[in-house]
Amino acid sequence: MNLVEQLAGLLGQEKVTVNETILEHHSKDESHFEAVLPDVVVFPASAEDVQKIVRFAKEQHIPVVPFGIGSGLEGHAIPIHKGISVDFSQMNRIIDMRPEDLLVKVQPGVTRLQLNQELNKHGLFFPVDPGADATIGGMVATNASGTQAVRYGVMKDQILDLEVVLADGRIIHTGSLAKKSSSGYNLNSLFTGSEGTLGLFTEITLKLHGIPESIIAARACFPSVKQCVEAAAAILTAGIPIARMELVDDRSIAQVNQFSGTDFPEEPSLFLEFHGNEAGNEADAQFVQELLEEYQCQTFIFEKNSLKRAQLWKARHDLSYAFRHSNPKLHTINTDVCVPISKLADMVTYARARIEAYGMDGAILGHIGDGNFHTLTLFDPQDPEQVRNTEILNGEIVTFALSLGGTCTGEHGVGLGKMKYQIQEHGEALNVMAGIKSLLDPDHILNPGKLIPSAEKATL
Amino acid sequence: MNLVEQLAGLLGQEKVTVNETILEHHSKDESHFEAVLPDVVVFPASAEDVQKIVRFAKEQHIPVVPFGIGSGLEGHAIPIHKGISVDFSQMNRIIDMRPEDLLVKVQPGVTRLQLNQELNKHGLFFPVDPGADATIGGMVATNASGTQAVRYGVMKDQILDLEVVLADGRIIHTGSLAKKSSSGYNLNSLFTGSEGTLGLFTEITLKLHGIPESIIAARACFPSVKQCVEAAAAILTAGIPIARMELVDDRSIAQVNQFSGTDFPEEPSLFLEFHGNEAGNEADAQFVQELLEEYQCQTFIFEKNSLKRAQLWKARHDLSYAFRHSNPKLHTINTDVCVPISKLADMVTYARARIEAYGMDGAILGHIGDGNFHTLTLFDPQDPEQVRNTEILNGEIVTFALSLGGTCTGEHGVGLGKMKYQIQEHGEALNVMAGIKSLLDPDHILNPGKLIPSAEKATL
Repeated sequence: MNLVEQLAGLLGQEKVTVNETILEHHSKDESHFEAVLPDVVVFPASAEDVQKIVRFAKEQHIPVVPFGIGSGLEGHAIPIHKGISVDFSQMNRIIDMRPEDLLVKVQPGVTRLQLNQELNKHGLFFPVDPGADATIGGMVATNASGTQAVRYGVMKDQILDLEVVLADGRIIHTGSLAKKSSSGYNLNSLFTGSEGTLGLFTEITLKLHGIPESIIAARACFPSVKQCVEAAAAILTAGIPIARMELVDDRSIAQVNQFSGTDFPEEPSLFLEFHGNEAGNEADAQFVQELLEEYQCQTFIFEKNSLKRAQLWKARHDLSYAFRHSNPKLHTINTDVCVPISKLADMVTYARARIEAYGMDGAILGHIGDGNFHTLTLFDPQDPEQVRNTEILNGEIVTFALSLGGTCTGEHGVGLGKMKYQIQEHGEALNVMAGIKSLLDPDHILNPGKLIPSAEKATL
Repeated sequence: MNLVEQLAGLLGQEKVTVNETILEHHSKDESHFEAVLPDVVVFPASAEDVQKIVRFAKEQHIPVVPFGIGSGLEGHAIPIHKGISVDFSQMNRIIDMRPEDLLVKVQPGVTRLQLNQELNKHGLFFPVDPGADATIGGMVATNASGTQAVRYGVMKDQILDLEVVLADGRIIHTGSLAKKSSSGYNLNSLFTGSEGTLGLFTEITLKLHGIPESIIAARACFPSVKQCVEAAAAILTAGIPIARMELVDDRSIAQVNQFSGTDFPEEPSLFLEFHGNEAGNEADAQFVQELLEEYQCQTFIFEKNSLKRAQLWKARHDLSYAFRHSNPKLHTINTDVCVPISKLADMVTYARARIEAYGMDGAILGHIGDGNFHTLTLFDPQDPEQVRNTEILNGEIVTFALSLGGTCTGEHGVGLGKMKYQIQEHGEALNVMAGIKSLLDPDHILNPGKLIPSAEKATL
């Protein structure tokens, strides 16, 4: 009996496919990494289905690779050793909505926009917003963040509990419904960001937030990216509880104007947002406007109208997509470093200089309130010199970030792309991580070849 | 050569002692658990010293128990299997203060007040405030929180990096100086709250916060504890970013008035605080005052004067101490459950009813903005019936909290006191925790007999 027949016997025919289009859809994500077809795609409908898949895979030593919606940027969902792609799109129910407790329990296939649409009815929202309409499961797997992390924290800060199917089929809960706990080791945070290498999520319980009474957005333009960054640092150290603070450089604005039909001035800009009550927001916004003048801010424009505000953030969210899809023959490669805020101006200046040194077309943008930004570089995959330069550029930017005390990835995750920097970043701690991987997945069937370089060689 | 001579040979005579007073000081904490003398107390001055101690202990199979300042409430620092008590009081330097990055690097023996005194000079503060002037190392070890967690998060939310000496003497760094990261497994959160059972901290890098422009405190009195709790839930679900929201019941207020010489009305109360700009705070405070009237709030008094405000929070912080030290012949026992906010009124009503059913003297107070509260019950350790009833009461409160989806400990940690509830709370996940313990400390020399019940029997 072949793989498909065996899985169909376990799960039912309708949950198992080798349809070519579907295999192809599960062979890639939004990254530039080479596609690899899985042997089979399965669509579990329950934790029990996931248990059956994992137990079967363990018995047969077949890789298991979880798949959300394919919006990852580091190749996490690419089944590089083939095997079973586990698609969570059939597990997309909101299981338990508890507005009175500011929490919600969802299945991993629920998407960010689907969740917020439902929360909106209760005056609530979920703040983590990577650009794409990612699944919540994928966002937990990569410890996603986005534009509002500067105020509301990243994915790991929102997790109350995960139901996880381990590599041997056991099901655990990593937390509870309590908002905080000092009971036992913190498994919530261990599994958040584990990229499918320690277990598969089947239920996720999240903290929620009330939609603020007042929201004010603003755009501020500066003569240079460096001044944007210095102004951002000044806002933070002044203790303003800014809700969003995005850097969008002139190259990015040009791209978004072209893609989204907007007419933002093509100058290095900060996109800002304030959340609170009306009086507090007015006071904060006025203080910020005055502060930014000290950094040669040339224009400061409020977007109080909710439609204009939505347009601003849609433009920002579409940026990465705008680059990738406006240049169909070119690939894009992202960096995602995060450094201490006082080092950000040096970091950004360095990145811009290196992009120019290679004569490449690249944008700089990101969540600078957290010290996190992206370079987005276009390259021709057919041109070996451009491919090589892109790789070198990436390594240079990461190495410089690490020398400043930073991290190689603030929010995209390790996947395939950042694996080669793990030893450099973590040193001896990487052996502890490899030990945990081998403890929980001794046969290395869970998303093999990701996150931990040569997990096989755990020395602990 | 005996233990003391060997350690003195490794560290130098002045860092090793068996002085009886010092041994006794390291035999207990602020809990009711029986004192056990360590064999020896050592005072490391560096990570290298800690490395030497741990390597020696591993070789000789001797327990190693870290000791901060002895303010724990669950017996974490009691060397129940004797061995070496590692006192961090000589490692109390602020190593690197970086106001411009909103971060600081400290040694584990630095205390909370020592840190804040230094931060104050830079217009910054560290928000985690358990009542005692605990060491930062101890606060990391128990994932401490306190009154400001509702706004600023708990200890785990403040950790950027830990330098940790593992059981075999290896030194790792669990994070970086970046404010967020998706690189590798989250070791920061795994080691935070690990209570000395996975490694010993030798450097801690913390996030800092700007002192808010405006702070308003207030007291609100209610006819019943239940109404206090319902009012608190209403404030939270209204999305007010309250900075502190403490429940103090009438019994507690009586105790604090007697101990601290205050004259607060002896009625169930909320102590509140707002952080922000002046206009925003005024608007929030007025909204809250109106909202609380719907919950029969009888008096709402602002403490705008910074002296009165300091007095209010000093009284709150001294409460646990006031109970323990005003009744020298009696012991106190704390519960520390944390439940979803909508269940808190039921939970508190149940706790009060059970305290009364046993005819005991007990107070209810806590950080209800997080769903976390303490019952503080006085009992006579010479009276077997009271001792038994206290134990049963504790178990009943924890069991009820778990049935509501809560946790047995919101902030005090597991230590000795909450170990018996770990299986009930975590189920199969406890085996994962035990596996991690055995992976990182296969000889179980690090704080043995704490946190993981019978860690020896890890089944993973």
